[in-house]
Parts: sequence; structure tokens; C-alpha cells
Amino acid sequence: MSRFLNQCYQSLEAYTPGEQPRDMRYIKLNTNESPYPPAPSVVEAMTREQVELLRLYSDPTARTLKEKLAKLYDVEPENVFLSNGSDEVLNFAFMAFGGKEAVFPDISYGFYEVYGGLYGIDYEKIPLKADFSVDYRDYCGKGKLVVIANPNAPTGMSIPVWQIEQIVKSNPESVVLIDEAYVDFGGQTALPLIQKYDNLLVTRTFSKSRCLAGGRLGYAFADSRLIADLEKIKFSTNPYNINRLTLRLGEATVDAEDYYREKCREIIRTRNWTAEKLQELGFQVLPSQTNFLFAGTPKMDGMALYLELKNRGILVRHFGNPRIDRFNRITIGTPEQMAAFIDTVKEVLYEKL
Amino acid sequence: MSRFLNQCYQSLEAYTPGEQPRDMRYIKLNTNESPYPPAPSVVEAMTREQVELLRLYSDPTARTLKEKLAKLYDVEPENVFLSNGSDEVLNFAFMAFGGKEAVFPDISYGFYEVYGGLYGIDYEKIPLKADFSVDYRDYCGKGKLVVIANPNAPTGMSIPVWQIEQIVKSNPESVVLIDEAYVDFGGQTALPLIQKYDNLLVTRTFSKSRCLAGGRLGYAFADSRLIADLEKIKFSTNPYNINRLTLRLGEATVDAEDYYREKCREIIRTRNWTAEKLQELGFQVLPSQTNFLFAGTPKMDGMALYLELKNRGILVRHFGNPRIDRFNRITIGTPEQMAAFIDTVKEVLYEKL
Repeated sequence: MSRFLNQCYQSLEAYTPGEQPRDMRYIKLNTNESPYPPAPSVVEAMTREQVELLRLYSDPTARTLKEKLAKLYDVEPENVFLSNGSDEVLNFAFMAFGGKEAVFPDISYGFYEVYGGLYGIDYEKIPLKADFSVDYRDYCGKGKLVVIANPNAPTGMSIPVWQIEQIVKSNPESVVLIDEAYVDFGGQTALPLIQKYDNLLVTRTFSKSRCLAGGRLGYAFADSRLIADLEKIKFSTNPYNINRLTLRLGEATVDAEDYYREKCREIIRTRNWTAEKLQELGFQVLPSQTNFLFAGTPKMDGMALYLELKNRGILVRHFGNPRIDRFNRITIGTPEQMAAFIDTVKEVLYEKL
Repeated sequence: MSRFLNQCYQSLEAYTPGEQPRDMRYIKLNTNESPYPPAPSVVEAMTREQVELLRLYSDPTARTLKEKLAKLYDVEPENVFLSNGSDEVLNFAFMAFGGKEAVFPDISYGFYEVYGGLYGIDYEKIPLKADFSVDYRDYCGKGKLVVIANPNAPTGMSIPVWQIEQIVKSNPESVVLIDEAYVDFGGQTALPLIQKYDNLLVTRTFSKSRCLAGGRLGYAFADSRLIADLEKIKFSTNPYNINRLTLRLGEATVDAEDYYREKCREIIRTRNWTAEKLQELGFQVLPSQTNFLFAGTPKMDGMALYLELKNRGILVRHFGNPRIDRFNRITIGTPEQMAAFIDTVKEVLYEKL
């Protein structure tokens, strides 16, 4: 730290992304990426001409991609916001709508707490229930920024949309942000509610179900006035936030919707197989509507299992939080990767016992 | 605007990027892009495999590109910051080092004022001299964040590095940000001074001399403690701020340094030719060390000339500021584009007179 850093950031705890080690090749089940490449038509869209056009700025209004997304999801382009990954829209939303107070679950995406700290927001963390579920009643009538990942991470569990509606309806004077990063793997979307409530912001990403984590493309839906606020923040920080290639790839991705739906179905099948195998091995596996499983075994500490797997070339994600220290978050890879994962878990357990 | 936007942003004036009209094909001399494509080896670097790897997140530490830039500029990787365009590093710098007060010239990159407003900084705008030059003495001993584009935009004029050193030396308790977006077209860099002063931040971009405006890649040099502060802000807002393809293209760009140096020389030659022609037509042309000219004619209002050129298919940039309303900022294109520009200017002037 320098002696020049603004005092308000001096005690800030930054976010820690999942590790990206370069010492060897791992089966990488730690950052919820897709095991599948983008659709062939998306790969084809990256022509020589597109790369040459990089001499020109991207369209800061991202009009074409907004129109395509609006059409796909049956909303107007004015209801769509595009961002450099969904972290950016979360960042802008905390900045624009955080005000003085916010509330989110104690076990959820770790970045919410970082944004709270960054903007000096007095945030409340409400404990998940003993079964790791979100009780929607905890978030009704709070009158502050409510942030809920649905499905939640790292638990993978979701709540039905009627419960989201109760939260939105009972907080008419503050924004309710529903982070739907994982919704395409079996969750219920709150998107239709934006037509009815002007305080609902639904965020999404191309990183998971759209196989484009490295492209950095997030999006959000809301009443056009909330979107206009986000645009104002964007045009006051970094108007050209999304690069030309990513905009082009995003357009091609929306055009290849069928490919991605099929890949989601494949991941769901592999997830269910993996969950079953883990349960057979005595693991507690939370019911997942995402592209990952949150699982732990009474036979072994979560950190120890994480390390044993890492030594054997498989990366999963362990979180320091004491309440979940028996668990690991396991991204769903290909069927072959998950078979290798299950075999390795067996190896570790038999060795230890 | 929604009723939820934090009060502090309600009167915020966002930045207005140069227009990107889509109604017809223009000779585009309005946003200081390069008329040349990236180097052939950069275009080749965008392989099918690279696009397929987009399913994976980018390296949030951007280690490889940092090492390459460090080697090219003879600093350590710890002295290098990478950002999603240089607007992002400016944004982070105002956030991290703005404190309560800042100072910059009245005529400069319009975004400084936006960042000042965004972070509630009490900013002072010091008028350029009558000849549009920066008087370095105006910025000595200010004791607040000093921001100077060198060369300056939209004037194109620069000050020598010994004057920068006086500013840096006389403000030991605050950060001095030197925005070198255009330095490769003839300015003098302040980079070596980072070894001597811990309060100097030098920002750069791949958008101009590196023909990569659409790739969104900015960078900065400073003492490692200043860089650590910027990393902290990045890891608290958007750790994966730069996408995989751009990192790869950035690496290939650094490897193709000779190509870009030659293109800079070509642009300087074309700039000098264009300046001469404009002077022959009676224009006042400020001495430029950039890839643009700032020029005006006593015969015609700047806005009127801008509109006449636009009607004829040539875009330049006009700024509303009354002090410079006779002027337009004209990006240097290819020799053919600038010949067409000069012919069109003649056409407009002869028609009007």
C-alpha cells in the first residue's frame, strides 16, 4: 500500500478469485467455467476481418447485442444493460443503489461483501437456515438494497419465483438485485417481474451457461429507469467497457441458443450422476440447480479433501468460512472429468480410512 | 433516472464519447483511432484455439503481458498495471488517489472532470495559456492530485519532461498522474522518473499507437506501492477486467513493436503534411505531438465546418467549450484519407466564400 491511498480504502478486503495455477495441468473444477467450448458458429464469427477492425473503438451503446438479447428474452432493448462481466454490473449496482444499507445472505457470492466495503455501505448478513436454504421472509420489508443470488452460490440451491416476488413487492422503496448467474441450470427466473416492479434488477452472465468466461460479458434486466442509471454510471467510468470482439461473439452466442441449451442439459445430466455417486460415498450433497455441487463428507475435513485432490491434479474450491468448512464447491465438468473426479475421491477416502 | 439512484450521482454529467454513426460510411477522423490494422502477427495470434479457450476465465494477474511490457520498458512487472482501456486506470486513480481535491487544465481530456464529479472531488481547472500551452508552474506545489495529459488533448501540445519533474518533485504529498495516451507520436515520456519519485503515475493505452482501440487495453507505470493500490481497487471491483483474447493480442502486440514504430512514423509524416496544407489554407494549427491536429480557421466557425464536413462524409470532432469553438480536432488517417480531407475542406471554404 502507498501512503497516497484514500483512507476509505485502506482497510478494504479485496475479492480473492479462484486459483489459476500454472505449475501443471489440472482437471479444473474450481471456478464454475463450462467444460465445453463456445458454439462452432461463435468460433467461426471471429474472422480475420473482425480482428483487423480492432483498430476502431467498440460501440459504447452495444446496440446490436442489446437488441438480440431483448428479442431472445422478450423485453425491450431499454430493459437491457451490458457489462464487462457480471461483476461489473454488480459493482455498478452497489454504487448506484447501495445507498447507506444493504442486506444479503451470510453464505453467498463473496463479492457482495467486498462491494459493501468498497462503497462504505452498512451491510447486514442474514444467516442461511440450518439446511443452507434462503428463507425469503428474512428479506421482506427491509427497505434497503437486497441482494440474493438465485440459485445461490456456493450452495447451488434456489428459491421459487413467487418468493422472490414477495421480497420485491415488500421493498418498494429499495432495489432488489437477483443475481441469476446460474439460472440456466435449472433455476426459475424472476425476469418477467421486471414488467411489474420498477425496483427489480436481474443480473446474468455469459460466463457459465454461455461458455464465455474469458470473454467477459454480463448483462442485466430491469425497468428502463434503473437501466438508465446503470448506463449513467458506465458512461461516467468506462464507456467502452466491452471490447469489439466480445460484442461480436456475444451476438453470435445469442444466435446459437440451441447449442447452449443442449450443453446445459448435458451439464445437468452430469451433475445428477455426480451427485448420486457422491451420495453413495456418504457425502452430504446440497440440491443443486447450478453447474456445480456443494458437498462434504463427515469422514474428512473439506480443506484436507481439497488438498488431497489438488495433489492428485484435481482443483475444486474450498471456502474458509467455518460454517461451511466441511464442504467443497465442485464445478461440473465433462462426464469423463467427473468420472475421474469420483475415482480420485474414492482413492483419497480409501487411503485415509 | 430512477427514484433509487444514490443522491450523490443524481446531478452527475457523464462523458460523451465521440459519435459512432451508422447511417453511412464516413472517413472517420473523430476518435483518434489508428487508420492501420494491428500487425499481421497480432491478427495471426487470434487462432481458433484461442477462441475456444474463452470458456475459461482470463488470468486476473495478467502476468505474461505484465512481464512483456516490463521488459520492453525496462521496469519490473510490479511497476506495471493493466486495465480495460486507459479510462479504467484513470477511473481507479481518481478513486484511489483523488482524496478531496484535484487539479487539471481547463482544456484537456473531458473525462477528468467526469471522474472528479463522480467521486465528489473538489477539482480546480487551471486555464491553459493564451497559446493553449500548459504552464508547468501552475501545477507546482499544489498538494492535491495533479492530472496532466502530456501531450495534451485536444490541443496536441506537449511539455518537456524536466517540467513534469518539477511538478512531481514539488507535490511530494500527492499523486501526479501523467496521461501519456499520445506519447508515441512525438512526446517525451516521464516514465524514467518513476524510479525516483513514488508519487508519479504514468498512464498509457493500446488504443492509439498500438491500433487496438476496440480491444480495450490500457496500462500504467508507477512505484510498486501505487500499483498495489490500483490492484486493490481492481480486485475490489472487477478482477477479470481484461478478457483472454485481449491479453493474448496485447502480448502479440508487444512482440511486434517494430511494426507499430513504423506506423507511428507514417502517422507523423502524414500529420506534418496535413498541418502544412491546413496552414496554406489559412488555418491556425497548434503544434502537435499526437495522432491528431487541433485547427481552426478565422473564416469559419468550428461547428459550421464540422457540420459541412459531416455532410460530405468526413467526421472530425468539435467541442462545445466556447474558448475553443473555432477549432476542430482532426485525427490523422492514411495519406489518402487526409488528401480527401484537405480537398473537402477546400470545397467547403470556396463554397462559403
